[in-house]
Amino acid sequence: MSGTTGWIAIAGLGPGDAALITPEVSAALEAATDIVGYAPYVARIPEREGLTLHASDNRVELERAAHALTMAAAGQRVVVVSSGDPGVFAMAAAVFEALEQGPRDWRDLDIRVLPGITAMLAASARAGAPLGHDFCAINLSDNLKPWPLIERRLRLAAEADFAMAFYNPRSKARPHGFERVLEILREACGPDRPILFARAVSTPQEQLNVVPLGKARADMADMRTMVIVGSSLTRLVERPRGAILYTPRSAG
Amino acid sequence: MSGTTGWIAIAGLGPGDAALITPEVSAALEAATDIVGYAPYVARIPEREGLTLHASDNRVELERAAHALTMAAAGQRVVVVSSGDPGVFAMAAAVFEALEQGPRDWRDLDIRVLPGITAMLAASARAGAPLGHDFCAINLSDNLKPWPLIERRLRLAAEADFAMAFYNPRSKARPHGFERVLEILREACGPDRPILFARAVSTPQEQLNVVPLGKARADMADMRTMVIVGSSLTRLVERPRGAILYTPRSAG
Repeated sequence: MSGTTGWIAIAGLGPGDAALITPEVSAALEAATDIVGYAPYVARIPEREGLTLHASDNRVELERAAHALTMAAAGQRVVVVSSGDPGVFAMAAAVFEALEQGPRDWRDLDIRVLPGITAMLAASARAGAPLGHDFCAINLSDNLKPWPLIERRLRLAAEADFAMAFYNPRSKARPHGFERVLEILREACGPDRPILFARAVSTPQEQLNVVPLGKARADMADMRTMVIVGSSLTRLVERPRGAILYTPRSAG
Repeated sequence: MSGTTGWIAIAGLGPGDAALITPEVSAALEAATDIVGYAPYVARIPEREGLTLHASDNRVELERAAHALTMAAAGQRVVVVSSGDPGVFAMAAAVFEALEQGPRDWRDLDIRVLPGITAMLAASARAGAPLGHDFCAINLSDNLKPWPLIERRLRLAAEADFAMAFYNPRSKARPHGFERVLEILREACGPDRPILFARAVSTPQEQLNVVPLGKARADMADMRTMVIVGSSLTRLVERPRGAILYTPRSAG
């Protein structure tokens, strides 16, 4: 096979429900010879003849990216899968890091990023529209950045009165970070500000929980939870079918 | 028709390409009796028997939302269409504002928000992964918020070292605001920070342009342009097929 026929697509599988996978991503998966990704995401791809599934562990993103680039350079048609959107705390940045550090001819490869429904927008849709005005997205994992930077961003984001979406709020390796995050938020935003815990959105395990910050506990989040804190304008509309959390379009 | 059979879905059509519309949204469009939205978005829906298209002007979001809720309460199956994602500077918040202000029985309606590929993630995917680390999204229109709040958020976002995605950077009604935004960004981030102008992403008119802030001009953006400014860590990787703009996963 010639190197010129290979390609690599870094694709977002959305939050879980197949009805949230774009036709663009489905077409890439159908055309692929190889699927590369973290094992739970690769497990979402049906096996078929002519397709090789390469599942890898968490925290080996650069090796996984280099493997995908090597296969594409050898003429294979490779889809790197992420959940959600590949450009948001996911594999796209890892592939470009590997590309930049790797052999010069990788830069001639046909590389595409195929967007997907990212977790914060899936969670926001289920709850109402908490991200309907200016907002920010922060990865709460300190695997790849120093903890003081996370605290600093939280305080500035609260000062800017952004709604805030938090990815990776909590893991077994970091049991105390999210407690500290909740303390900072209570201090900066007060105890009445609503916080949404959206777990496993669009899957059969989906659970939504909105509480005021004063009643939020760290164990309300786990690795599958997306957390969204409202801005000072975010409102909760009670109704029989479940409350709606939304941030109005107007401010000031 | 009984009011209990009606429903309303607030759906995101993505940035333009039909291959970026989720199957969930396509299914809602197929089941609908009425489509409501800003005229250019309604124009994307093919006409068919049994479907009424209700196109409206810009800046009448609340009236449009109330019309949609009224029809759903009368038993119709209504899809309110937005481009991108309906929860990001789009119709979902407007529908919930109308719902909160409207008759009490609207709260019994079956209302769903169906997420879509929002402009910043489509633009980010085309350029590489500039939103691959912590970032914020700011609507630069001052139709619905005071200009000083926009300036304040820009300065705090720069201080937090977020990558920044800007919706509605410029319109005929606001020719000077975006010039001021560029001045503030140059002051806060320096002249070398890369800025992406992504116009009409995923359509035949798509145009991408990455320049350093020092060379950015306000007329590089128009109403169809998404603007993304990198964080201090964002990198540009030159290559024959066009440069890649990405923000690494690690900081500090």
